[in-house]
Amino acid sequence: MNLKGIGASRGIAIAKVFELKHYDIKIEKKSVSDLNKELTKLDQAINKAVEQIEKIKSIAAKNLDAEHAAVFDAHIQVATDPMIKDEIVSLINNDKVCAEYAVEEISKKYIEMFSSMEDEYMKERAADIKDVCQKIIFNLLGIEKEDLTSINEEVIIVGVDLTPSETSQLNKKFVKGFATDIGGRTSHSAIMARSLEIPAVLGIGNITESVKSGDILAINGQTGEVYINPSKEVISKLEKAAKAEEELKKLLETFKNKPSVSKDGHKIEIAGNIGSPQDVPGVVNANGDAVGLFRSEFLYMDSNDWPSEEEQYQAYKVVLENMKGKKVIIRTLDIGGDKTLKYFTFPTEMNPFLGYRAIRFCLDRKDVFKTQLRALIRASEFGKLGIMFPMIATIDEFKNARAFYDEVYKEVKKEYPNISSKIEVGMMVEIPAAAVNCENFCKYADFVSIGTNDLIQYTMAADRMSEKVSYLYQPLNPSILRLVKMTIDGAHKNGKWAGMCGEMAGDLQAIPILLGLGLDEFSMSASSILAARELVSRINFKDAQKLANLCLEADNEQEVIEILNKNSNW
Amino acid sequence: MNLKGIGASRGIAIAKVFELKHYDIKIEKKSVSDLNKELTKLDQAINKAVEQIEKIKSIAAKNLDAEHAAVFDAHIQVATDPMIKDEIVSLINNDKVCAEYAVEEISKKYIEMFSSMEDEYMKERAADIKDVCQKIIFNLLGIEKEDLTSINEEVIIVGVDLTPSETSQLNKKFVKGFATDIGGRTSHSAIMARSLEIPAVLGIGNITESVKSGDILAINGQTGEVYINPSKEVISKLEKAAKAEEELKKLLETFKNKPSVSKDGHKIEIAGNIGSPQDVPGVVNANGDAVGLFRSEFLYMDSNDWPSEEEQYQAYKVVLENMKGKKVIIRTLDIGGDKTLKYFTFPTEMNPFLGYRAIRFCLDRKDVFKTQLRALIRASEFGKLGIMFPMIATIDEFKNARAFYDEVYKEVKKEYPNISSKIEVGMMVEIPAAAVNCENFCKYADFVSIGTNDLIQYTMAADRMSEKVSYLYQPLNPSILRLVKMTIDGAHKNGKWAGMCGEMAGDLQAIPILLGLGLDEFSMSASSILAARELVSRINFKDAQKLANLCLEADNEQEVIEILNKNSNW
Repeated sequence: MNLKGIGASRGIAIAKVFELKHYDIKIEKKSVSDLNKELTKLDQAINKAVEQIEKIKSIAAKNLDAEHAAVFDAHIQVATDPMIKDEIVSLINNDKVCAEYAVEEISKKYIEMFSSMEDEYMKERAADIKDVCQKIIFNLLGIEKEDLTSINEEVIIVGVDLTPSETSQLNKKFVKGFATDIGGRTSHSAIMARSLEIPAVLGIGNITESVKSGDILAINGQTGEVYINPSKEVISKLEKAAKAEEELKKLLETFKNKPSVSKDGHKIEIAGNIGSPQDVPGVVNANGDAVGLFRSEFLYMDSNDWPSEEEQYQAYKVVLENMKGKKVIIRTLDIGGDKTLKYFTFPTEMNPFLGYRAIRFCLDRKDVFKTQLRALIRASEFGKLGIMFPMIATIDEFKNARAFYDEVYKEVKKEYPNISSKIEVGMMVEIPAAAVNCENFCKYADFVSIGTNDLIQYTMAADRMSEKVSYLYQPLNPSILRLVKMTIDGAHKNGKWAGMCGEMAGDLQAIPILLGLGLDEFSMSASSILAARELVSRINFKDAQKLANLCLEADNEQEVIEILNKNSNW
Repeated sequence: MNLKGIGASRGIAIAKVFELKHYDIKIEKKSVSDLNKELTKLDQAINKAVEQIEKIKSIAAKNLDAEHAAVFDAHIQVATDPMIKDEIVSLINNDKVCAEYAVEEISKKYIEMFSSMEDEYMKERAADIKDVCQKIIFNLLGIEKEDLTSINEEVIIVGVDLTPSETSQLNKKFVKGFATDIGGRTSHSAIMARSLEIPAVLGIGNITESVKSGDILAINGQTGEVYINPSKEVISKLEKAAKAEEELKKLLETFKNKPSVSKDGHKIEIAGNIGSPQDVPGVVNANGDAVGLFRSEFLYMDSNDWPSEEEQYQAYKVVLENMKGKKVIIRTLDIGGDKTLKYFTFPTEMNPFLGYRAIRFCLDRKDVFKTQLRALIRASEFGKLGIMFPMIATIDEFKNARAFYDEVYKEVKKEYPNISSKIEVGMMVEIPAAAVNCENFCKYADFVSIGTNDLIQYTMAADRMSEKVSYLYQPLNPSILRLVKMTIDGAHKNGKWAGMCGEMAGDLQAIPILLGLGLDEFSMSASSILAARELVSRINFKDAQKLANLCLEADNEQEVIEILNKNSNW
């Protein structure tokens, strides 16, 4: 019997079914007379939930990269949110009901509110609240959930849904994959599965009803195929596919010692994107040529106050040291938009993506900016540092930011004479205004790095998180390719280098075109580095140039893909 | 004695002070026993307010253009809002308080909520609620406000603030100007004053305390200067300035019979932007060469349901007939973003400007789109019609919209054989993706018209309504000029024409550059047409071309302005 779901994390797994218990709990509205006792119970359940999340967080910190582990900070925030708790306490006091009923009611309200929002980001908040409130209710009812960390034989987990809490604890050694009734490619669980490299098929609809304990399950996390008690033929087919993946992996391993160079000798740089010092080993392990983007905002988002110069200095220093002389580009604070802070309230804006964020914030709050620049400049002693400013829209903004940097540099130099004299100062190109006039921006910037996620959103005037218009998020649209070309040409005209640190840089379909357009540096998630290097090794730069020129003249993304397919002789 | 405020509507006025009574009413929290009586009083006061607004609206419809008169539809909506009324009724019932207190309390809540928003658009909602609730309270208290329509001698009105209701009723014959303590350039009153062409200085701070009845006041609505009992010298200086304005007006009158052509014979088209059929006389009176933009959404926003084919047909027909064979470009529905409808709920989006709007909505709701296209095509019988689609981001969108149009055209042709066979079908260029690749879009579009307001916002990634980033709204920034150039060049390469219908097209500073970049059609508010034609008549096209090339290479808007000042020999 075959089923089909959404391939959410690639890889093939064949193993015994492990049925995740589904707790379908009906909560009764019980009256209570001793309100104080009930409130004490509530406090204990919340405290226990916080402890549980802390424990999960510490496991997650080992299993996952910092960006993904950060979801548990959000969980702790939910568990300790004074507004939510106030509402629960009021309901207990006013209606004299049991705590589990009050938690259920209030959480339902919030979950409904967030799930009804169109926006994917907000929808995910509903999952967070559900995960946390379920913990509190289980604690109130004295239910102990299965401990997934204690699984000690090879299994594929089957369940209605897997919460982020559950996913993050899975031990790759025994959990070969998981398959669920609901969920999609963008859910937290899917993202975590990819980060953990555990194959997963989600949104199957009826997998829990279709299997029983003892069944053997086979899943293909790329195609979404699911086989229950597969035949020998199916197993052999899947094993062949798994073997091919395995061989590709081995082939890629051999590229750890090779330079990033095209078949005809055109050299480029393939770098890694990181979110915290914990992500550096991933880049080192994949033999990345550099760190092309260190998103410094996680230092700010994980903190309860503006991080001090010293805290930041230590983080930057560790990254530079661990990269052992290879280039590290650190992006200054890109906060605002959809990224908020616990200790600072951004103005309410109708369109936060078109608002007060990133360099606009930093040029307005020079105190915050200065602390970061001092920390960065001090850390330059320990490696090859580049600094880049996000969301630059005008030459004036870049010149202002750079002049402020120069001032701070002079000040720091007096205190710390060992700092580097060769820090490169560049900018992100993620706003159309910077791309169309890059040749003039590059009179002042040492380098540029294209941030494709934002560039595409602004160029298309479409928020990719908004379901109704997400079809306009088209990395290979000729308009986008033209802006990429203008950016690269503008940099080269001034003898500067151009990189890319958006998702597009690691996309195997986009790489030949970007190579042909002359991109110098490709910065991507560590897991894509070797595949990119292997691909580039098979391409003649001259062929890529011809290909790119054809793509620029296409009418749409579909035509670009057809041109690609027709002209790929690698 | 001199004061200084914000010049909000140009022109010079010297006249007697008319002190607008300031009602500083303290509302007492009175207990009532007969709740039914109180609720009846409330209903009567609300009904009376609606009548009052209807009356103001009908005066405004004569004095103002449709776009500005539309604010009173918003007022009627506030007055009849069931949620606000429910809250007032609940407060009366629960707290047994008098109606005026309840209205005051609830309106205060809403006013505070809206005023605390950063967003200018939302802040204006606070002014609307204040205006309406004040009317209801006055009706409850039996206070009759002065009737400004009965003023019958020349005066300058002085008050703390002028509500939109008050401004819209002013009779230009007697009210020579107004001066207020509070308010700014973007308030509804300021916008209405400009539309009425009444000089106004706002935000003076203490004008009401500084004048008394009988004083003579002189104001300069451009510079914001205010003189109380001005000396002969001041009067003579102001009169000289007023005379110069008067002479300019006369000079401009002579341009009513002249073609729109540069000194050296380069012909362009200077057209008018309109929001409703009532705005056509303005364009005809200013001898506009065409209507370059008819914003069709006012047909939808003024309605209680989707406007029928017949209603739309009548509106389009009137415009085409009254333009007597001159070209009329009608933009299809540009709804969503900040423009909402009473009868359709748009999805909640985190960034509505980057969301489901305009052509994205129409391609999704072909039923709505078809009704409009049928009405447009039928009306083509009565003049020279052009249709343009808003918010086009990809060539596919344009091709889809055009294919649908072709289909509808064939259908209508069978029913109405007299329709025109020469309808031009073009597109707005207001999204960066369309500007950078205009040469390929123009393989399919008959013409393009640049919408600068949106193009600038997306290119700079800055919502100009957001205070903190409104500084990035820079029409003359070289990045914007480059996109304008790409658009015009792309159109010309395909033998198509390029127009502009954003605010920039009517800006006397921008016109020489746009002329030099080769723009074919300039569409602006009717009041700017003659000044634009006069300016162009003094410029050599060749000089403008040289100027434009210099501006493209500038670093910032300031440099562009310096280049302009240095190179303007006209």
